[in-house]
This record gives sequence, structure tokens and C-alpha cells, in this order.
Amino acid sequence: MIRHIVLFTWTEEATDEQKAAVTAELRKLPGLIPQIRSYTVGADAGINQGNHEYAVVADFDSVDDYLVYRDHPDHQTVIAERIRPILGARAAVQLSV
Amino acid sequence: MIRHIVLFTWTEEATDEQKAAVTAELRKLPGLIPQIRSYTVGADAGINQGNHEYAVVADFDSVDDYLVYRDHPDHQTVIAERIRPILGARAAVQLSV
Repeated sequence: MIRHIVLFTWTEEATDEQKAAVTAELRKLPGLIPQIRSYTVGADAGINQGNHEYAVVADFDSVDDYLVYRDHPDHQTVIAERIRPILGARAAVQLSV
Repeated sequence: MIRHIVLFTWTEEATDEQKAAVTAELRKLPGLIPQIRSYTVGADAGINQGNHEYAVVADFDSVDDYLVYRDHPDHQTVIAERIRPILGARAAVQLSV
């Protein structure tokens, strides 16, 4: 299994509406990309200081399935239209588990 | 459920032995901290450029159980003795899922 993990911070100018649109659009992807086995997205719970603000954890059966997701036009549209306009920092790892 | 996610980069001076010791010591924690429901740790798979180098994904039934883990002496020992000496950057999120 490949577990894809990405954490974001948002710009100071990002609005609540823009942040909510990221979640709304990402949550459509499991219905559009059948290679996604498990998909967990959302805002940081606010337990600790200094955290990033948002996380995506997506599981796939194989590297090839992850690459289908990574490069899928519907995913790239969310990145280009919803994430990149409010993106501060990004940290990612793919784990082979 | 609370999903705790943390990504690390290592210093340039970090050795393979030091990196391997992080995994070996972290993987002992589920046997020492019964509040851990699921625990996935490991090095980045090398699929993409620009990634962080290491990930920990830990699931808990509640915020209180996560806090037991966060503050547990055995966990704090791994952080102090194995992670902090080779830590570059750290990014974390706790998701309520």
C-alpha cells in the first residue's frame, strides 16, 4: 500500500470560504478517482501550537494507483483553482506500508 | 477519532544508522502505549522530489488518548534521544475524523 500524506499552511489572506471550498472539492475526488482506497482530509484540530493548518491522507494499492490520482485532471483542477491560490507552505511524504 | 500526522526532514549530517534508529524506537511505542490504535511510520518512498523525509501517522480514539501518547515518557525519550539530534524541519497536523 502507498499512503500519500500532505500538509498545508494557508496564506494570511485566505478566507474561511476558500478553506471550506478546498475540503468540499477534495471530498468529491473519491467519487471521481476509483484508485483511491481511503481518503481523509480536513483542518487541524487546534490541539497544538505551531501546526500546519490542513492535512490530506490518501491510501492506494500501488504506486501506479497513486500516480493516477496525482496526475488526474480533477485533482489537478482542485490544486490549481482551490489550493494554490491560498497556499502558504506544503510538506508531503509518500509511505510504502 | 484523532489522527496525528507529523512529517520530518533530517539534517544533512544525519547517518543511515541514526535514521534507522528512529524507526526502530518508534515501532516499540505501540507495545508501550496502549492508547495507540494504529501506527504507521517510515521513510519517504522517493516517488516525488521536494518531499519531507519521514512520516508518522498515529490514530487514537480521542483527544485524551492522543495527549497520553504525546506526553508519554517513552515517546518523549525517542524525541529527545533519536529525533531531535537529527531533526531538520517538522510539520504536524491533528485531524478529527
